[in-house]
Amino acid sequence: MAFLNEHYLKLKAGYLFPEIGRRVTAFITAYPDAAKNLIRCGIGDVTESLPAAVRTAMHSAVDELGDRSTFRGYGPEQGYDWLRKAIAENDYRAHGMDVADDEVFVSDGSKCDCANILDILGHRNIVAVTDPVYPVYVDTNVMAGHTGEADEVGRYAGLVYLEGNADNGFVPAPPTEHVDVIYLCSPNNPTGAVMTREQLEAWVAYARKHGSIILFDAAYEAYITKPNTPHSIFEIEGARECAIEFRSFSKNGGFTGTRCAFTVVPKTLMAVDENGARLPLHSLWARRMTTKFNGVSYIVQRGAEALYSPEGKLQVNELISHYLGNAKILREASIKAGWKTLGGVDAPYIWVECPKGISSWEMFDKMLGEANVVITPGAGFGAMGEGYFRISAFNSRVNAETVASRIGTLKW
Amino acid sequence: MAFLNEHYLKLKAGYLFPEIGRRVTAFITAYPDAAKNLIRCGIGDVTESLPAAVRTAMHSAVDELGDRSTFRGYGPEQGYDWLRKAIAENDYRAHGMDVADDEVFVSDGSKCDCANILDILGHRNIVAVTDPVYPVYVDTNVMAGHTGEADEVGRYAGLVYLEGNADNGFVPAPPTEHVDVIYLCSPNNPTGAVMTREQLEAWVAYARKHGSIILFDAAYEAYITKPNTPHSIFEIEGARECAIEFRSFSKNGGFTGTRCAFTVVPKTLMAVDENGARLPLHSLWARRMTTKFNGVSYIVQRGAEALYSPEGKLQVNELISHYLGNAKILREASIKAGWKTLGGVDAPYIWVECPKGISSWEMFDKMLGEANVVITPGAGFGAMGEGYFRISAFNSRVNAETVASRIGTLKW
Repeated sequence: MAFLNEHYLKLKAGYLFPEIGRRVTAFITAYPDAAKNLIRCGIGDVTESLPAAVRTAMHSAVDELGDRSTFRGYGPEQGYDWLRKAIAENDYRAHGMDVADDEVFVSDGSKCDCANILDILGHRNIVAVTDPVYPVYVDTNVMAGHTGEADEVGRYAGLVYLEGNADNGFVPAPPTEHVDVIYLCSPNNPTGAVMTREQLEAWVAYARKHGSIILFDAAYEAYITKPNTPHSIFEIEGARECAIEFRSFSKNGGFTGTRCAFTVVPKTLMAVDENGARLPLHSLWARRMTTKFNGVSYIVQRGAEALYSPEGKLQVNELISHYLGNAKILREASIKAGWKTLGGVDAPYIWVECPKGISSWEMFDKMLGEANVVITPGAGFGAMGEGYFRISAFNSRVNAETVASRIGTLKW
Repeated sequence: MAFLNEHYLKLKAGYLFPEIGRRVTAFITAYPDAAKNLIRCGIGDVTESLPAAVRTAMHSAVDELGDRSTFRGYGPEQGYDWLRKAIAENDYRAHGMDVADDEVFVSDGSKCDCANILDILGHRNIVAVTDPVYPVYVDTNVMAGHTGEADEVGRYAGLVYLEGNADNGFVPAPPTEHVDVIYLCSPNNPTGAVMTREQLEAWVAYARKHGSIILFDAAYEAYITKPNTPHSIFEIEGARECAIEFRSFSKNGGFTGTRCAFTVVPKTLMAVDENGARLPLHSLWARRMTTKFNGVSYIVQRGAEALYSPEGKLQVNELISHYLGNAKILREASIKAGWKTLGGVDAPYIWVECPKGISSWEMFDKMLGEANVVITPGAGFGAMGEGYFRISAFNSRVNAETVASRIGTLKW
């Protein structure tokens, strides 16, 4: 009989968000009246309408497809040249970074890219992740057979876990041991921690010394307001020799349901084959995308392009200001409640230590039952997330204000 | 240093369509006047405008995203329930097939699904492909490390090649040896051959006897007009225990640039782990999609749904009739020229034996140079494609008629 990929069987059954969904459904069934007041600050999904510039561009694109003289069939798998150019020019070259148009690969999501990038890497790499961590980095390594079984706190054998905690502000420093591949996310999901230039420089120096590759997830870079904080790893000298960067239109342009993202693979980034020969990863990723992907919808690419128009940029700024305004309200309410509070400044996530030493799922149940607010328990992001919870600022202003006021009414 | 996936290095450098592109560019540069008459019948890309029903639905969907009360963020990774239901109901249950809504997984392309399906299968399977073959099936197995090196005709060690030829009408029968995974495509790309019910029954019987899995690519099923010819492998009894089916909106709804497809994984389909335990693949694919994919754009899913409306169905029928009309014209011109001609009846591809024993690349150059028509050389699809070429019927009627007339003017 045909064999299945049995590495999948190592995956822990209860993925975070399904378990949250189960508890929320149980709550709604048991307390239908209270459920009318439910506010969701769990999953990091945008809530505000898609920018007008994007919608105008997509309407035009739909009309173009209705006329055979302007119809578009298969596009380039890596994205249309005009979108790759808009990205490279606006997000990189305008800020002094050296990124060529054809180093930008347009895709349908950063989650997909973070997952698919393993396709072009070998199976013998030592892989490091932070803890807490965005679960996709870990799960895709499990699926690819890069780990053993999980232990009782959910850590998989074979992965190197870099611990975040209150002492290091949830920004782990490079390890003393050698690792080949490192996932970093800044501004961080779930902790909202933002790496300083010095911290990122230390990582680039480590990677260059060790010949490691940093997989840098910058999906939340638009939330950075502090000057001199890197938006991209390519602001750091030497990063073109050791890093791949993932970015998304989900959290700046509100594209979570529209779907568009991109990945930058510098042509100067090398890895080795089994004989030690150094070869560029750019051509492997190009081959991966042309063989296993067929490009993003033309309509969506035109929508993404519009985010770089003058109106599009203004509308993105309005969205970011809105969510950062929510983050400020939620952060201040959390501090006022006497909770140890991180994040929420240059990030849409507030990361809070659970009061009174309760567990993160106990906090989840308390927030749901007493405040009718869905948050995300930190334990869902790894062992080091236990004792913390995440509040998402993706909501309407009135909901953020309501959540802030309810935080003050919890009984202890 | 970090390791790359060195299986990529086994891939033959010259993928078919880039080489065609190179020769076409050289021709245009050398003969700018003749190039003005160039007609492309190479790549299988649709040319006619997107159905009105689809565009109306997509305009509405764009507007919905402009209002926060109807805004959609992350959707279900497997597709919205209403689209899964429309697919299962219209494409399967309406034709007496037993397919549940949640056995349908909506994706952004059949190429992606055909490639990604290997994620959930083990590395020890014996994999069979037909020859000629859609190159993606082969290349993704090379990338996954399921093969050795390619030989001088491009066949990779470790794969089982099932030979198509004039004697079997390019529909290979099941082999005598055991294989675990089999890729079948009907109507076939590139040959236009369509499997009869008896032929498909023989494959299902083989797969059930051997515990094999058939990966059935039905991207061109809409082109079948002959009664009693299976549109789906699930028309065959027992297929739910041995098959996965890939379908696409690219070639019926003209979605090559809009991007939407789906895969059916029956819950009754099992594979084994290393201990021989039988487990359902459905839950693995669900896990794969939720972890490595974020769903198709809401706008595009609404467009796909509209293909199942009464107007949408009529508009799809018009598109199919148009392309089949072209196929008839091209097929008849080829026969009139005295060429041995296959396909082009229930398929948008005409598969022609090269006249006078010339090679398929010689035929490519002759068609380009003398008729100013781009075709696809059969050798690009495998060793058994040598001596044949493919004409695509995806074009305007006037272009199809012009190509038909030029075929008659070739000098020999």
